[in-house]
Amino acid sequence: MNIFQVDGTLVCTDRHPGMEKLPLRILRDQKGKIQVAVDTIGTCDGNWVYAVSGSAARQALGQERVHIITDLTICGIIDFWDEAE
Amino acid sequence: MNIFQVDGTLVCTDRHPGMEKLPLRILRDQKGKIQVAVDTIGTCDGNWVYAVSGSAARQALGQERVHIITDLTICGIIDFWDEAE
Amino acid sequence: MNIFQVDGTLVCTDRHPGMEKLPLRILRDQKGKIQVAVDTIGTCDGNWVYAVSGSAARQALGQERVHIITDLTICGIIDFWDEAE
Amino acid sequence: MNIFQVDGTLVCTDRHPGMEKLPLRILRDQKGKIQVAVDTIGTCDGNWVYAVSGSAARQALGQERVHIITDLTICGIIDFWDEAE
Amino acid sequence: MNIFQVDGTLVCTDRHPGMEKLPLRILRDQKGKIQVAVDTIGTCDGNWVYAVSGSAARQALGQERVHIITDLTICGIIDFWDEAE
Repeated sequence: MNIFQVDGTLVCTDRHPGMEKLPLRILRDQKGKIQVAVDTIGTCDGNWVYAVSGSAARQALGQERVHIITDLTICGIIDFWDEAE
Repeated sequence: MNIFQVDGTLVCTDRHPGMEKLPLRILRDQKGKIQVAVDTIGTCDGNWVYAVSGSAARQALGQERVHIITDLTICGIIDFWDEAE
Repeated sequence: MNIFQVDGTLVCTDRHPGMEKLPLRILRDQKGKIQVAVDTIGTCDGNWVYAVSGSAARQALGQERVHIITDLTICGIIDFWDEAE
Repeated sequence: MNIFQVDGTLVCTDRHPGMEKLPLRILRDQKGKIQVAVDTIGTCDGNWVYAVSGSAARQALGQERVHIITDLTICGIIDFWDEAE
Repeated sequence: MNIFQVDGTLVCTDRHPGMEKLPLRILRDQKGKIQVAVDTIGTCDGNWVYAVSGSAARQALGQERVHIITDLTICGIIDFWDEAE
């Protein structure tokens, strides 16, 4: 899973019906590149999160929403990490 | 999902029958690299869009067209995004 | 889908039986990196093509050849593209 | 499979229920980029490991845990490797 | 498929049981980055090979070994290639 910082919300009126009305967040990776992810846990701007990609991104939406179109889904808000000394 | 700008239309007479006659757009990413995507929502040159990759790209074509060959499908035209302050 | 130029043919006597005798082409991407792809449409050296990756690459071989091992399959020869002005 | 060094443990109280309480490690790749992986074999900080990505990452969790959400799972601790001379 | 040179053998006593005792090779890509692959055809150090990634890597192990955990499998030893003139 990659680590990102939430950088805003995507406004997108003309979108694929398979994405329903799930919130789409702008995520910025460690190199500054931005991507779009489905947010299932309610993140705020500035949060550090990790997100799953590929077929796992659909699985993260649960059995009843596995038909939703996504290749990147936010799966956790990071509190902190213990770095090796 | 990655963010791209639509940069033109691909003309390709000698193509795989599994792609039918769906429009293929040239997309330019944030670094200037171009890729080819299936367009299901009718984009115009210059639009900013996001596209899904991998197996989700086929799923985005719907149940009756899931046999179509693609690994990148345009899923939404971006209006704008609210950046974190 | 990525865009490549066909740069030659791979000769490989000691290959996985799951690849049968399908032609393998050397493709060069926009940055000069080379990859190997299965060719189903009969390309020539110098052609500009696009190829699908991942599970779609197997699907591109059709129902009767979906057991063939590949993660990159050429899907079309590019005539030209209309760039945005 | 990519090679990483374990660089710490991720603390993440607000996480997707599909990840249960499996330990999440911070892995650092050869270029210094960090990623998050599920640890199934009990690694320590500083260990050199290799990890599988994509759908294989879920398969690595075994039949009874294949529903767990992951796209990167640690699969082995590296003792050493014999380099070609 | 990507092209690699075999650069040694990985010794890894503490490994996932789903990988059984298949040989794991260190592969070096065109940029010098190393990865780990399952070797099904018996390569030697210094060989130039190509390897399949993703779900095709598992399929390359055959029906009776498709449960084995891998995301990169060596599929052929390259004799040479004819470059475009």
